[in-house]
Amino acid sequence: MPYEFKIQRRVEFSETDMAGIVHYSNFFKYMETAEHAFYRSLGYSIVMKEVDPPIGWPRVHADCDFFAPLRFEDLVEVHMLVKEKKNKAITYVFRFYKVNGAREEVARGILTAVCVTHSTQGMKAVPIPKDLAEKIETAPAALLE
Amino acid sequence: MPYEFKIQRRVEFSETDMAGIVHYSNFFKYMETAEHAFYRSLGYSIVMKEVDPPIGWPRVHADCDFFAPLRFEDLVEVHMLVKEKKNKAITYVFRFYKVNGAREEVARGILTAVCVTHSTQGMKAVPIPKDLAEKIETAPAALLE
Amino acid sequence: MPYEFKIQRRVEFSETDMAGIVHYSNFFKYMETAEHAFYRSLGYSIVMKEVDPPIGWPRVHADCDFFAPLRFEDLVEVHMLVKEKKNKAITYVFRFYKVNGAREEVARGILTAVCVTHSTQGMKAVPIPKDLAEKIETAPAALLE
Amino acid sequence: MPYEFKIQRRVEFSETDMAGIVHYSNFFKYMETAEHAFYRSLGYSIVMKEVDPPIGWPRVHADCDFFAPLRFEDLVEVHMLVKEKKNKAITYVFRFYKVNGAREEVARGILTAVCVTHSTQGMKAVPIPKDLAEKIETAPAALLE
Repeated sequence: MPYEFKIQRRVEFSETDMAGIVHYSNFFKYMETAEHAFYRSLGYSIVMKEVDPPIGWPRVHADCDFFAPLRFEDLVEVHMLVKEKKNKAITYVFRFYKVNGAREEVARGILTAVCVTHSTQGMKAVPIPKDLAEKIETAPAALLE
Repeated sequence: MPYEFKIQRRVEFSETDMAGIVHYSNFFKYMETAEHAFYRSLGYSIVMKEVDPPIGWPRVHADCDFFAPLRFEDLVEVHMLVKEKKNKAITYVFRFYKVNGAREEVARGILTAVCVTHSTQGMKAVPIPKDLAEKIETAPAALLE
Repeated sequence: MPYEFKIQRRVEFSETDMAGIVHYSNFFKYMETAEHAFYRSLGYSIVMKEVDPPIGWPRVHADCDFFAPLRFEDLVEVHMLVKEKKNKAITYVFRFYKVNGAREEVARGILTAVCVTHSTQGMKAVPIPKDLAEKIETAPAALLE
Repeated sequence: MPYEFKIQRRVEFSETDMAGIVHYSNFFKYMETAEHAFYRSLGYSIVMKEVDPPIGWPRVHADCDFFAPLRFEDLVEVHMLVKEKKNKAITYVFRFYKVNGAREEVARGILTAVCVTHSTQGMKAVPIPKDLAEKIETAPAALLE
């Protein structure tokens, strides 16, 4: 069963700031891009309207440690690993590598998303749909160190 | 009846790019901020769920001419004017002034939004709700030159 | 000589807004992504530090007409064409197609960028470097209609 | 000496996503807005070109816990507190409150920024300029719990 996914993307001009480096908020967007591509690789979309009621994945925690800057046109590999799969939530680890030039880990992040349905009372955490949960595995501990 | 609105905002770090100036896509966000504040000033929200069916305002045209750059912490005045009010659409003009230091017009933009409802067939243009339409006036031609 | 370039990108979650569609400011980022990939295809970067003095390409005009919305995970083709090449400026046309499902033109935009150097007096328009200018051609009129 | 700062901002349409709530990456932008306003309140800018060499504040860590969503036009108070002041780095805590309607803490974040100069070898951590460091105090422990 899958427990990881890798994407590559090239840093865009609009993602840089006046310091000449990628604005740190964009690393959180990069995380999400990898997460969503992981879902597509499983045959799902993070936006699941076809389940009843529709579910969503709001974030309850996100963090990132930054080791080195990324710059315009750098090629970034985002390596996503499933750190923990609970009944109603998934936690991912993300390792960011600059892969143009010498491969270098530039950041490491964590994201926890909770499976919810929306009702008139607001969001409510619900168990991850069974067929999806069965497709997602926790990464081996050795990979998460 | 109101035909204009002014807002001020300070340029944020995340709005700059590696050229040290505000990324041009942000001027289109600034336009919208002025438009939405204009609606609030009329007692409305651009997101009108309380009308039945709910209406939205997708954009069908946007343009901007840029005369001078904006930089971090510059104070920007966005002066919005109603250029044209049609049955199902409104066109706005926006003048951007840098107001720290010598007042200087740095950009001028146009935005056309169409009033729509959402149905299973997608979006459908509908007349602007009467009570809202009655509160919005076209700016005098002299101001639009 | 090259006068066009095409890129594809998938709509990201963070590019959508509460109306469930791509926020219109992102079309201006998509334009730029195509422009910059075009430069790379010519062996250049839009950020040219190796020329002396370094040059940049601030925008003096941008516009976009929106025909249909883009949604999360839609696949977008951006077709860039060189509309006009002047001594110190280039104007591009961009056609946006949704290419998942039936191919559909969803937007059309224009961008004019001016070649500048930065000095203590600010930006100054300069002729496009000769070796770059020689590599860029205006698209045939028939393609620009 | 100052150890805290508060700002308010209204959620903008472009900050929402298709789930109808503020995209989580924006909380990291809100943090920065408060940090920069704090600097201005001290008579400084986060971009200090007038010191020699110029210094910058890249982030080495950021995290955020999300308790409740923010929606379009919600009014957010960001309460920044100095958690730790070291020789070359500052750590801030941020508490996000929704203040339209019943006051509610919606998120809590942390940001660590390092004082650097830029050289041809890249960024290098340096002591915080003395006159600035003297103006910033660590918040009382009781406020940080």
